[in-house]
Amino acid sequence: MRKLYHYYRSSCSYRVRIALNLKKKDYEKIPVHLVKDGGEQNKDDYLKLNPKGEVPYFIEDKIGLGQSMAIVMYLDETYPDPLLFPKDSSLKYRCLELCEIINSGIQPIQNLKVLQQLGKRFQADQEMKDDWIRFWIQRGFVAYEKLLQEVSGKFSCGDEVSAADIFLIPQVYNAYRYKLPMEDFPLIEKINKNALDLLAFQEASPEKFVD
Amino acid sequence: MRKLYHYYRSSCSYRVRIALNLKKKDYEKIPVHLVKDGGEQNKDDYLKLNPKGEVPYFIEDKIGLGQSMAIVMYLDETYPDPLLFPKDSSLKYRCLELCEIINSGIQPIQNLKVLQQLGKRFQADQEMKDDWIRFWIQRGFVAYEKLLQEVSGKFSCGDEVSAADIFLIPQVYNAYRYKLPMEDFPLIEKINKNALDLLAFQEASPEKFVD
Repeated sequence: MRKLYHYYRSSCSYRVRIALNLKKKDYEKIPVHLVKDGGEQNKDDYLKLNPKGEVPYFIEDKIGLGQSMAIVMYLDETYPDPLLFPKDSSLKYRCLELCEIINSGIQPIQNLKVLQQLGKRFQADQEMKDDWIRFWIQRGFVAYEKLLQEVSGKFSCGDEVSAADIFLIPQVYNAYRYKLPMEDFPLIEKINKNALDLLAFQEASPEKFVD
Repeated sequence: MRKLYHYYRSSCSYRVRIALNLKKKDYEKIPVHLVKDGGEQNKDDYLKLNPKGEVPYFIEDKIGLGQSMAIVMYLDETYPDPLLFPKDSSLKYRCLELCEIINSGIQPIQNLKVLQQLGKRFQADQEMKDDWIRFWIQRGFVAYEKLLQEVSGKFSCGDEVSAADIFLIPQVYNAYRYKLPMEDFPLIEKINKNALDLLAFQEASPEKFVD
């Protein structure tokens, strides 16, 4: 029994879909619509499952887990082939640093809940929200691109796909969606292209799941 | 050679100070003032070290690492005594989930850079900023408290200090600082009290480092 509660456009859900595909693990996909009817994630039944009221939420046997980083790490240690966090210790922590630049440094500040609060509290209109989104992605990508100069190859950490790519590619998807100019990020764009050549990334893409 | 670039009030720096104290590792403390002169973290010299322009930044021998989660994991695997991520696998990922509720779910949305942008873009005054801070901490604590009902003991994950406490206690410090009503969070308050009985937490507190 393996289930993923997800939303097609949630970049954190997208991460877990990629990880499961890379690990070649089948799973039941349960859509939780974050916008319809005030958000299905806020319904009592879902909050009982995941009190944070967020997607993704992953269930396997007796384990139920929220937070994409926790889920990706669980999958990596439970199904180590292919390994998503590199074995080599200095590369491993650099990989985690790259993940966190996106996981804590970009995504949380530009997600749906924050945008809703910007509208509610500060009357931010769509243009102001889009500019907010671009600002935080741009800022994080500057640091990510810089670190890539040191450790990237075909992918973020050398020539093998790693957890960093799992966090990066959904964020690039958002960057394109909000029309962030990408000319300062040639390495990120190259890695995005290489990743999207792989079926595991293609099959996890939001386009495959439009409700 | 072990150095930590930190800011006394940065909750992410506070996390790493606690971890280093729990591991009983001496380190050189290098203050980076996030406010003075437009922020020392934005100076060229510091950006060369850490392109993200953030604290903490940790250096040990040949490893230089940003992102508190990456640093705490590095420390835990390099110096496993005492272990900060529980050995038991189901408890380990729950611990990571708790860390992430704070690491990606609360802290990034209410940090200094975001507050500065709220002021600049939306003319948010101090009262609006304080309310923003309380809103996100409250929201995250609701989920954290709920998970504690399932796994906590004297500390967040059973009766031993874990990484979750390292992330929680600096966030509670901020909650008190911004006068968040805490009556809905009895388990968080109990754990905060138990942690602050320990010298490793006391010695890492911002009060010890006021510049």
